[in-house]
Amino acid sequence: MKFDQRRVVIEQVRPQLNGGRHYIKRVVGEEVSVTADVFGDGHDVIACSVLYKHEKERRWQEVRMRDVGNDTWQASFNVEKQGFYSYKVQGWADHPLNWQHGIARKIDDGQHVVSELLEGAEYLRSLASHASARDKKELQENAARFEDESRYQESIAIATSPRLHELFVQYPEKGLVNESGPLEVYVDRLRARFSTWYEFFPRSSAEELGKHGTFRDCLRLLPQIAGMGFDVLYFPPIHPIGEVNRKGKNNTTDAQEGDVGSPWGIGSKHGGHTDIHPDLGTVEDFKELIEAAKGHGLEIAMDYALQAAPDHPWVKDHPEWFKWRPDGTVQYAENPPKKYQDILPIYFESKDWKNLWKEMLRTVLYWVEECGIRIFRVDNPHTKPYFFWGWLIAEVKKKYPDVLFLSEAFTRPKVMQQLAKQGFTQSYTYYTWRNSKRGLIEYLTELTKTDQAEYFRPNFWPNTPDINPWALQAGNENVFLRQYFMAGTLSSNTGIYGPVFEQVVHAAVPGKEEYWYSEKYQVYHWDWTMENKLSILISKINHLRKEHPALQQTRNIDFLQIDNDNLLAYYKYDDARESELLILVNLDPFYSQQGWVQVPLHALGVQEGHQLRMQDLITCSDYIWEKEWCFVELHPPLPFHLFLIHK
Amino acid sequence: MKFDQRRVVIEQVRPQLNGGRHYIKRVVGEEVSVTADVFGDGHDVIACSVLYKHEKERRWQEVRMRDVGNDTWQASFNVEKQGFYSYKVQGWADHPLNWQHGIARKIDDGQHVVSELLEGAEYLRSLASHASARDKKELQENAARFEDESRYQESIAIATSPRLHELFVQYPEKGLVNESGPLEVYVDRLRARFSTWYEFFPRSSAEELGKHGTFRDCLRLLPQIAGMGFDVLYFPPIHPIGEVNRKGKNNTTDAQEGDVGSPWGIGSKHGGHTDIHPDLGTVEDFKELIEAAKGHGLEIAMDYALQAAPDHPWVKDHPEWFKWRPDGTVQYAENPPKKYQDILPIYFESKDWKNLWKEMLRTVLYWVEECGIRIFRVDNPHTKPYFFWGWLIAEVKKKYPDVLFLSEAFTRPKVMQQLAKQGFTQSYTYYTWRNSKRGLIEYLTELTKTDQAEYFRPNFWPNTPDINPWALQAGNENVFLRQYFMAGTLSSNTGIYGPVFEQVVHAAVPGKEEYWYSEKYQVYHWDWTMENKLSILISKINHLRKEHPALQQTRNIDFLQIDNDNLLAYYKYDDARESELLILVNLDPFYSQQGWVQVPLHALGVQEGHQLRMQDLITCSDYIWEKEWCFVELHPPLPFHLFLIHK
Repeated sequence: MKFDQRRVVIEQVRPQLNGGRHYIKRVVGEEVSVTADVFGDGHDVIACSVLYKHEKERRWQEVRMRDVGNDTWQASFNVEKQGFYSYKVQGWADHPLNWQHGIARKIDDGQHVVSELLEGAEYLRSLASHASARDKKELQENAARFEDESRYQESIAIATSPRLHELFVQYPEKGLVNESGPLEVYVDRLRARFSTWYEFFPRSSAEELGKHGTFRDCLRLLPQIAGMGFDVLYFPPIHPIGEVNRKGKNNTTDAQEGDVGSPWGIGSKHGGHTDIHPDLGTVEDFKELIEAAKGHGLEIAMDYALQAAPDHPWVKDHPEWFKWRPDGTVQYAENPPKKYQDILPIYFESKDWKNLWKEMLRTVLYWVEECGIRIFRVDNPHTKPYFFWGWLIAEVKKKYPDVLFLSEAFTRPKVMQQLAKQGFTQSYTYYTWRNSKRGLIEYLTELTKTDQAEYFRPNFWPNTPDINPWALQAGNENVFLRQYFMAGTLSSNTGIYGPVFEQVVHAAVPGKEEYWYSEKYQVYHWDWTMENKLSILISKINHLRKEHPALQQTRNIDFLQIDNDNLLAYYKYDDARESELLILVNLDPFYSQQGWVQVPLHALGVQEGHQLRMQDLITCSDYIWEKEWCFVELHPPLPFHLFLIHK
Repeated sequence: MKFDQRRVVIEQVRPQLNGGRHYIKRVVGEEVSVTADVFGDGHDVIACSVLYKHEKERRWQEVRMRDVGNDTWQASFNVEKQGFYSYKVQGWADHPLNWQHGIARKIDDGQHVVSELLEGAEYLRSLASHASARDKKELQENAARFEDESRYQESIAIATSPRLHELFVQYPEKGLVNESGPLEVYVDRLRARFSTWYEFFPRSSAEELGKHGTFRDCLRLLPQIAGMGFDVLYFPPIHPIGEVNRKGKNNTTDAQEGDVGSPWGIGSKHGGHTDIHPDLGTVEDFKELIEAAKGHGLEIAMDYALQAAPDHPWVKDHPEWFKWRPDGTVQYAENPPKKYQDILPIYFESKDWKNLWKEMLRTVLYWVEECGIRIFRVDNPHTKPYFFWGWLIAEVKKKYPDVLFLSEAFTRPKVMQQLAKQGFTQSYTYYTWRNSKRGLIEYLTELTKTDQAEYFRPNFWPNTPDINPWALQAGNENVFLRQYFMAGTLSSNTGIYGPVFEQVVHAAVPGKEEYWYSEKYQVYHWDWTMENKLSILISKINHLRKEHPALQQTRNIDFLQIDNDNLLAYYKYDDARESELLILVNLDPFYSQQGWVQVPLHALGVQEGHQLRMQDLITCSDYIWEKEWCFVELHPPLPFHLFLIHK
């Protein structure tokens, strides 16, 4: 045990993940509120600060913490730039403040404090040495006054003055300072927190039936997708598709002539992860599409799927990156007894692993640098080592702090959480399967009121090419509508796989949550011009998300009491509480539901009797509410209210 | 971010305090149950172990963890020796176990697994290289079998056999192992967890009225105190008492001729912290008393109070260990506006602090080495720096692991907790003021069901020389009885300040929780031969504590439902559940109270209808209970049942 003269203990610095092993996350402009247990021995007054700085800065900035009770202290700072900030807590026994605290009590008690004033004079002179010229003069004059017994009355007035307190705070005398270890927060651009994704298969973009779509075909669709209010356009892999063991329609293992295979079976004689499928076009076409999309406010997200078809160039060039079995065959992907012969997993335990990692990094950087891609949706990250992701994401962000990664892991909670801790910007979630009131409230509470709120940014998807959820399989349009509405109002990051979703495609492989004749294995031909109730309401919801800051974050949510298990009610607000929404959803797709909802009067800062104008942003109806409990009725064909609250 | 090929994540290792900065505590023979979140990427089978070792051992011992759900794993180990143990968690992707898991599923699925058997043969040969001779032979034979297609049926039977699984567990193939940081547990002797203290002022031990008691007088009291079932005899400071600014009777500042002063005002011309008050006797007398006490099963605990009377030798010899004010006077202890002129606080910010610390340590070691003292009750540790205590306790325990320290801090929760984290063996508590059912349940829950159970060992005192609590001031014998009974059955460490307590002394300084004419400032003359209901029942309770292991720990407690706010019911048990008690207390000192208590049938492992014989260990009455809810009535003069449960 070491000799350590410090007097202040600092513990439980929050937010903090796993003792600082992982960083928390924010976006530019957000606040970090830091709390810590800080206390000294004995009765001495202590003081503490949060120190913080951006990774590119040298000097720490300081903000004094305030006592919030039970030896816990708090202070906040704002993050203004992308990249890492460090923060830490510093504490010390503050002798000048302690002196002022003591002398005030003695004076109140009627004690004569001549000797205490002499002590005070010493503190003032010490402070003067590092004060501004003006303050220095004031401090020195006061010191002289304190030493002059004939000015006793003046002196005790000054000794106990708020002005002197202010000077003590401004020029702290930090002796025997204790400090917590530094913690980190990574600051992303806003899109990390607020994004609306649209996924489609570019090969299904052709106008003409039976044709393989191209990037040039996609150009024509941009105005419409942007017009629906999406801002991220995500494509399944656009690379050459393996020809060996290619999958046929409906996930069969005997592909027929003309079958196009799964885009996730990456790599063929046409190239691998840094090449483009020849049927989609050229890299120049892709760049043109990216530029055109940008013009429509759409950012293109690529798929990053670390696996290889048997004919991927890596297999020949780097056989040591794959696992070979004693019988000389290569190890296919498997989850016994299931086998996936069209893809080989990467062998991360390879002896040549460092080169392998570097190639994986090069692949990402190629698209970042060559095409300006800044968003990757990562396929099955949970089947690759966690620390690989920690390294890869850190390496990419070191040069390109604006690159975002969405983790496509639908697996056990701690696995999904760990990927977020390793640096994934956003994560797919269990939202798809949370269809009950209780399930939704519990899940949102976990995401927004626990440590997860510090690092796990949910992205709510009602469907994906891999998931045709039970809830949607009946093809009830009301359910589709409800699922999109809740995704878009519960979570600031959301997405759909279309046009499957808005065209209410719902046929499933019997007994599975998979699409029948999935677009994963064949080219679809869509009527891209179709508009319907669903597409119109999705557009409406997306545009409301852009207008109302309360919908641009996930964290500020309070569920409201409502006396019906089929009705969900929540109050959402932005940090400044300038945009406040009260949202109601009918979870029953078949029957109208009625109930009494408790209006969050306290949070709204109004009393019962105050007239609230509830403006339904979807229907443009207005309601006047003035009671704490108000009646609502919702019908399945329009199963929600999205009320903007006017006070 | 560093390159790191490991595949298993280890997080949330428990028990763990402040990221391992502080150690947890156990006593010899106890168990440490370790849990951790451990998981790998993908589907591979993982395995993990707890590794542990005593500080004097070189080799880590290993115990495999078992999966207890949701990626949490658990294992336990026992601590057998005093001193520090380290423990850590190790995890790895277990390829042989994974292979066995996979091949079993493929065989079930009807797949032909010749190639898989060849893989298995490789694992077996690898294991054989570090197996015992007998197992080696078995493994090699099996490997050969696996390679022989003609023995396919035998091979697949062996491949999926429990015996092979056992070998895989016994000889794990640990590749790319991940490890948590090591954590520590300090193991004390049993008395750290189970002790019954009796405090008295040795100067009040004289037989003759008006005489100052001596250690020789104390000799005569030993049989009686031991007979009451106490095992620790704690004396207030036995050092010379300051003569400058000595306190008079009833804490007055104008001591009269003959006033003996407070024993906590340590130091005079007769010496300081390593000297004995001449009126008590000599160090030889003290040693004789210690030996005699030992013969009665009583261990003498000393007071360690770091402060000095103005005439303490330290003040002259080491003026730099005290704070001097600008007017040349020394700084008295104060908590403005209050002043304590009879004592000077130690100035821990002294420039000569390292010598100061060494002298403090020398003081403890003097009594440890010279007199064999092994328990110190530390006075007001919260007014000295925390890290000083961390250092001092560690230094003492390095040489004398059996030394115990009781922290006398009655202050804010986090301060009391911090002292325990710095190494105090036991702590005084808020028990003295927890008189309501809800308050008691909440407090015990905090002490036994949170992290505090790992490091904060409560010692429940109904009174101390400093605290004459409101609850006892009315002098209601029923309350004294209840307070001792609850202290002794809720907490395995307990103590009283006597004979004040058992003689129901209760006069208080008006409006304060202080004794009127406190023994702190004067010599008392007691009738040491007095026996009364209280002293008889205290003896009874103390002897029951010695007989029933359930009362020798604090942690194993469950509060029971009982439909009366004046009745408290709890179930206590030892780790083996061989000693199970059901305890009931009437908190109302004036009226009988009745209620229905819920018997913990599930914990007892019996069904409703099973006859339980409830043996009241105080009254020796028996009751037969066979319902889940049973009726009880308790009268204030004997306000409890202490039932031993016979199944």
